Amino acid sequence: MHAILDAGMVAHVGFCVDGQPFVIPMMYARIDNVLLLHGSIASRLMGTLGSGIDACISVTHIDGLVLARSHFDHSMNYRSVVAFGRARLLDDPAAKAQALSYFVDAIVPGRAAESRAADRTELAATHVLQLEIADASAKIRSGGVKGNLADADLPHWAGVIAMRMECGAVEPDETVAPGTALPASVSAFLSAQGPAP
Amino acid sequence: MHAILDAGMVAHVGFCVDGQPFVIPMMYARIDNVLLLHGSIASRLMGTLGSGIDACISVTHIDGLVLARSHFDHSMNYRSVVAFGRARLLDDPAAKAQALSYFVDAIVPGRAAESRAADRTELAATHVLQLEIADASAKIRSGGVKGNLADADLPHWAGVIAMRMECGAVEPDETVAPGTALPASVSAFLSAQGPAP
Repeated sequence: MHAILDAGMVAHVGFCVDGQPFVIPMMYARIDNVLLLHGSIASRLMGTLGSGIDACISVTHIDGLVLARSHFDHSMNYRSVVAFGRARLLDDPAAKAQALSYFVDAIVPGRAAESRAADRTELAATHVLQLEIADASAKIRSGGVKGNLADADLPHWAGVIAMRMECGAVEPDETVAPGTALPASVSAFLSAQGPAP
Repeated sequence: MHAILDAGMVAHVGFCVDGQPFVIPMMYARIDNVLLLHGSIASRLMGTLGSGIDACISVTHIDGLVLARSHFDHSMNYRSVVAFGRARLLDDPAAKAQALSYFVDAIVPGRAAESRAADRTELAATHVLQLEIADASAKIRSGGVKGNLADADLPHWAGVIAMRMECGAVEPDETVAPGTALPASVSAFLSAQGPAP
């Protein structure tokens, strides 16, 4: 489950307010059995979520499209985790600053060391939530087409199209001097992607 | 919002049971202002969700990683929709069969016509939920690095890495005769992807 969580960049965070469900996409980082979540202090929902109510956090990766000979057996290859716990707002500025560095490294490992840590004003403008995972489950579907053997006689193609998140162009900010090399974290991130699946 | 929903393949569906939130990834299709959801009849949660309780459905696309010179200004480019409504289970077999064809075409347009429609046994094993969107909001972040102008003097690189879901290898099922051409839907799907962003 940690591997599935660590491979993701956006979690869908659910919680209930007076029986009304909310599902909000958020950036996150995992440290041990804790999920750190991140949002603007202007978000009323972040404050509600941080009041210690029950939360459910879901992370899903799409790995492939499974095209069967029948509508019914069409499927996806995927990895997902659904985790439960209660979130609380971090107050300590040092803990919040460290959490921000974890968010940055969760996106591009090593990037936090290549950029400026948060200052007091920025920390005051940031809600960081900490959720210890109380319970969680994972679901994985992989492999090829499964289904009705009788369908093999149908005149339809069947197979799997692999899917994944990929990097595209890297666009330096206009303030970066032309010819500046990419930083080590970005180069490593692009290399780690490897060839297409 | 329809464009953001139509570009997705998995929705994160949230609902509350006795104050406990659940967020479940599900395949879906959009028809007009209705979201169709899909799950196994073995799923107790699908039945609960289909009893007409409030639901919240979130679809998110990651378009880029925004690497700023400060931790605080790191961000993502994304498009997301959060939609609210109540789901009900479809009973009518013809409506369920049509919904299954919509799910197939939502993954790979044109694929439903190239595969067998669901039979009575398959329909009985499938829960299809229909949710009319009562309310929804979209959030989009695009463009480059934003943040503290004073940071431009720091000795750090800044820029954006484009991201998107991409197709990889196509693996025909072992029952497909060697040399069989890809069906029109799959060829069009691969072509529609275009060059890297």
